[in-house]
Amino acid sequence: MLIHHIHTLVQTLPAETGLVRGAGMQTLPVLHDAYLLIEGGRIVAFGPMAECPARADVQIDAKGGMVFPCWCDSHTHLVFAGSRETEFVDRIRGLSYEEIARRGGGILNSARRLRETPEEVLVEQAWQRLEEVRGMGAGAIEIKSGYGLSEDSELKMLRVIRRLKEMSPMPIKATFLGAHALPAEYRDNREGYMQLLIERLLPQIAGEGLADYVDAFCEKNFFSVEETSRIIDAGARYGLKAKIHTNQFNSMGGIEACVLRGAVSVDHLEVLTDEEIACLAAGHTIPTLLPSAPFFLNDEHYPPARRMLDAGLPVALATDYNPGTTPSGRMPFVISLACIKLRMLPEEAINAATINGAAAMELSADCGSITPGKLANVFITRPMPSVAYLPYAFGSHVIERVLVKGEG
Amino acid sequence: MLIHHIHTLVQTLPAETGLVRGAGMQTLPVLHDAYLLIEGGRIVAFGPMAECPARADVQIDAKGGMVFPCWCDSHTHLVFAGSRETEFVDRIRGLSYEEIARRGGGILNSARRLRETPEEVLVEQAWQRLEEVRGMGAGAIEIKSGYGLSEDSELKMLRVIRRLKEMSPMPIKATFLGAHALPAEYRDNREGYMQLLIERLLPQIAGEGLADYVDAFCEKNFFSVEETSRIIDAGARYGLKAKIHTNQFNSMGGIEACVLRGAVSVDHLEVLTDEEIACLAAGHTIPTLLPSAPFFLNDEHYPPARRMLDAGLPVALATDYNPGTTPSGRMPFVISLACIKLRMLPEEAINAATINGAAAMELSADCGSITPGKLANVFITRPMPSVAYLPYAFGSHVIERVLVKGEG
Repeated sequence: MLIHHIHTLVQTLPAETGLVRGAGMQTLPVLHDAYLLIEGGRIVAFGPMAECPARADVQIDAKGGMVFPCWCDSHTHLVFAGSRETEFVDRIRGLSYEEIARRGGGILNSARRLRETPEEVLVEQAWQRLEEVRGMGAGAIEIKSGYGLSEDSELKMLRVIRRLKEMSPMPIKATFLGAHALPAEYRDNREGYMQLLIERLLPQIAGEGLADYVDAFCEKNFFSVEETSRIIDAGARYGLKAKIHTNQFNSMGGIEACVLRGAVSVDHLEVLTDEEIACLAAGHTIPTLLPSAPFFLNDEHYPPARRMLDAGLPVALATDYNPGTTPSGRMPFVISLACIKLRMLPEEAINAATINGAAAMELSADCGSITPGKLANVFITRPMPSVAYLPYAFGSHVIERVLVKGEG
Repeated sequence: MLIHHIHTLVQTLPAETGLVRGAGMQTLPVLHDAYLLIEGGRIVAFGPMAECPARADVQIDAKGGMVFPCWCDSHTHLVFAGSRETEFVDRIRGLSYEEIARRGGGILNSARRLRETPEEVLVEQAWQRLEEVRGMGAGAIEIKSGYGLSEDSELKMLRVIRRLKEMSPMPIKATFLGAHALPAEYRDNREGYMQLLIERLLPQIAGEGLADYVDAFCEKNFFSVEETSRIIDAGARYGLKAKIHTNQFNSMGGIEACVLRGAVSVDHLEVLTDEEIACLAAGHTIPTLLPSAPFFLNDEHYPPARRMLDAGLPVALATDYNPGTTPSGRMPFVISLACIKLRMLPEEAINAATINGAAAMELSADCGSITPGKLANVFITRPMPSVAYLPYAFGSHVIERVLVKGEG
């Protein structure tokens, strides 16, 4: 397949490590008046139109639009049962998190509904969401369990994700997030739940290859740093690396524990100290920001992205798509929010959502940039005056066509 | 035309005055399992499916989706030449408003470009934007001049809007906003520009029927309360009522001047005192809020909507679509922002963007609610669990089909 008459081909920098940071974040190589050649679902070549090869079997005229590498959304909870707009309205009415939880809201609300929903229905609903986010430019995605919170239901969620992996051409990574919240049945038996996760579930999940990563919600009233560390260590024994929710509302020491244990990513980071930034700078853990969550929660504690970038951290951006705190998988809006609220430059935000997002899923060899050999996961926009137009036009649908493995 | 199998028909309250306020804002009559009958581009009847009339020539199966009255977007600057993402990036880099203006940004940037752009090109670009916002559910819209700032170019803009009125089935209102900014040529001659607006332009515009309203940007460094009052008074002499930009950054007395003069609406109101709320409560001027502007400017001064609603004001919502401070005409996002940032209930936000928006354009007889006799300007959503799902799902495209005068 040949895409021709591309106004601007946005390459992103295919760094040696698969990550960009510092000045590299601000670098976004672009080629004007370009072509892109795809064979067998992979990028074969690109270059100026003047060197465009003989026409291929299938051709797409980009008509002066731009071509970007697809988004790599490294943090989602895309498998869930039912929406939670009632809690949204409760928050507008001024109810506190605790009151909403008392009325049956929060993660346990999603868990109750998920347990009641048959596997096939979950697959169907999640598939619709996956198709929706593909239409918004996603070309690789991570999906977590964590609304099961019981042996049967966590396994059910992970089987749903496995089914999505089989159905979709998009690379999908599955993360076991049994430690998302303490289920009601274990209210007085935290240790019992920890043992269920570590001694019963992890061996089964690893044995069946149901997950690629392990996660925990390291936060006050959820899981402590010590419990999170036990989960990371247990995952490691079964070959599952860690991607950890931490520092969403409080800084409790989660960053240091995760960096020490070589977690692939730490995600959220709305509350982050200078010491934690230094700790991240010294380690290999990717800080992943999810600005749609504070936006939707009307919480002005956004992550200190500017300080992180200035410290040379390889920041990634993801959607956090989930029914409670971020009912949106729209990555272009995350890019806009990153520019508006996190003061990231458009180039920084795009690199964070592509090449660094790919690294946060260990997909750098296949995704995150327009590089010969990588998967042909790209999207074509309508004609735009510049790359910065994408976050600027925050309410418009600029993406006209999305190809995953060259199809779409 | 017959729309059948509507899950929920959202009527909005067709108040006697064409406005809703107080408890009325929270009231959104809905009918489940409904039909809607359209003839000659107007709503003829609606009711429960059990009473659905014999099938019509043209039928639409809503397939369990919801039907809403179209948005009535009462404040836009939809005619402009070129985007201003360069200024967006300058703001991210920390440049002040003054520095950006010094570099040639701001309203005068749009004026320079508009003056250079042929009328036909402006029509074509504005038409694409109008089609885009129609796809997002807009069914009536107000469009301002104000990027001309010279005799020729203000008239050119108003002719573009007249052309859009001829082309579109959507009711469109034109507003003369010559007093948007002082053009460079008049930097040392404010009075000369005021005279151009009042003595040369207003008579021509009124004579040719080129505008429905007059507007001014009543703000520090733009136009004073006294200048704004002169423009309102002059407009009145030619039969043009006022819709005024005021209290975006400062409270200077603009509200009182507008209410005293019977302005149809005062728009922005990010900075609003309790005295001004009382003044609005005693008058007949519609307070119109534009939350996308502070969102895009990353300015946490949002209008005090909750205090206004609690004081019984008939709040309206609009997009403020313009290339500088709000490059988006997406009303569903305005509804989400109204809920998230202004703490408006979904019902209040929807009433503000439909029936009260219609009143802010004096279109209550034709638009703003699903009422027999009004225009069949309605949109059909995908199936949703409730009305609140629309603002909750802030990143999704829930609108599947938009009818204007029954067509679309």
